Amino acid sequence: MLDKLQWRYATKKMNPAKVVPQDKVDRIVEAARLAPTSSGLQPFEVFVVTDAAVRERIKPIAWNQGQITDGSHLLVFAAWDDYTPERINAMFDYTNEVRGFKNEGWENYRNMLLSTYPQRGAEVNHQHAARQAYIGMSASIIAAAFEEVDSTPMEGFDPAALDEILGLRAKGLRSVAILPLGYRADEGDWLVNLKKVRRPREQFVTAV
Amino acid sequence: MLDKLQWRYATKKMNPAKVVPQDKVDRIVEAARLAPTSSGLQPFEVFVVTDAAVRERIKPIAWNQGQITDGSHLLVFAAWDDYTPERINAMFDYTNEVRGFKNEGWENYRNMLLSTYPQRGAEVNHQHAARQAYIGMSASIIAAAFEEVDSTPMEGFDPAALDEILGLRAKGLRSVAILPLGYRADEGDWLVNLKKVRRPREQFVTAV
Repeated sequence: MLDKLQWRYATKKMNPAKVVPQDKVDRIVEAARLAPTSSGLQPFEVFVVTDAAVRERIKPIAWNQGQITDGSHLLVFAAWDDYTPERINAMFDYTNEVRGFKNEGWENYRNMLLSTYPQRGAEVNHQHAARQAYIGMSASIIAAAFEEVDSTPMEGFDPAALDEILGLRAKGLRSVAILPLGYRADEGDWLVNLKKVRRPREQFVTAV
Repeated sequence: MLDKLQWRYATKKMNPAKVVPQDKVDRIVEAARLAPTSSGLQPFEVFVVTDAAVRERIKPIAWNQGQITDGSHLLVFAAWDDYTPERINAMFDYTNEVRGFKNEGWENYRNMLLSTYPQRGAEVNHQHAARQAYIGMSASIIAAAFEEVDSTPMEGFDPAALDEILGLRAKGLRSVAILPLGYRADEGDWLVNLKKVRRPREQFVTAV
């Protein structure tokens, strides 16, 4: 896997003529769906935008970054705006349904979440949900590298404007990150040949 | 990679007699170091705790979760408490040093960050840094699965108490998540044989 992380980079120029096959996109999204999240709540959704007109509307509210329209797919990671009792109960009920039984410890855990999460306030909960969405996005970025698909994680966009374009707030969601998928262009990518830079291990890892 | 995500689960009971080899731990941490972060700032560090006494001190401030001491290694993901001009400049200077040249666009980008990030306030910046740490943790979780090492991502701990135990605040860091590494016990793990539960694709993915 480390070779895949070395291979990938935040692609700056994508080839608009090349389309990522649907089965690859499906596996990249599936990685986000299978990724772990806090208490298994999966407090985010993924929007796969291919509609050209929608992507043209997103581009100007994202610093006109070309990958948004030059890539073939744009993943939008949208986190829950809040943890509500309904959302918590839905996931616990679904878990019981899939596993086919109720478990006392699990029900106690449900009640603990119900008695704490909704009371924390929407902003705290959204920030918490956003972190879980990043776990999923990270899984998608790595999955893309395994598929030899280029991707460019982006925070540089106006979340409120993107929420408006995709109608996210009405669904109780807020966009937190976007990930164009595509293939690097043969020319015009200033980053492609530059060395990947990471802090040395001794400045990153501490043994205790 | 999807098979690795299917294989992994939040291990509830680890075998205290089994130790994860150091080369595997190194690769699991390396995945976090190579993971992408916003503007490449890598605003987090990883602490690899093996010291038994330290882990015994951490356990009670983390709901006495046994994996903290039954696993052989405990990774602590600690995010920057703030984006300061010094930290931003250090990463841009280091990038120039590694790449061997200065680039006008890159310097403009540095100045844009310097004129916006420090002014946002420490809490906003820490939340942003925490999200990046989650990208790294996700990479470590996936890398662990590739190494056939069990791991248990945890948010259930008292961050202020953990910061105190590890002396993180003096280093400008705040703990955001912990990840025990080890091997599942033969008995006593209530989750190991239960079905992995994820929302169906149609409730997770929307095509636009």
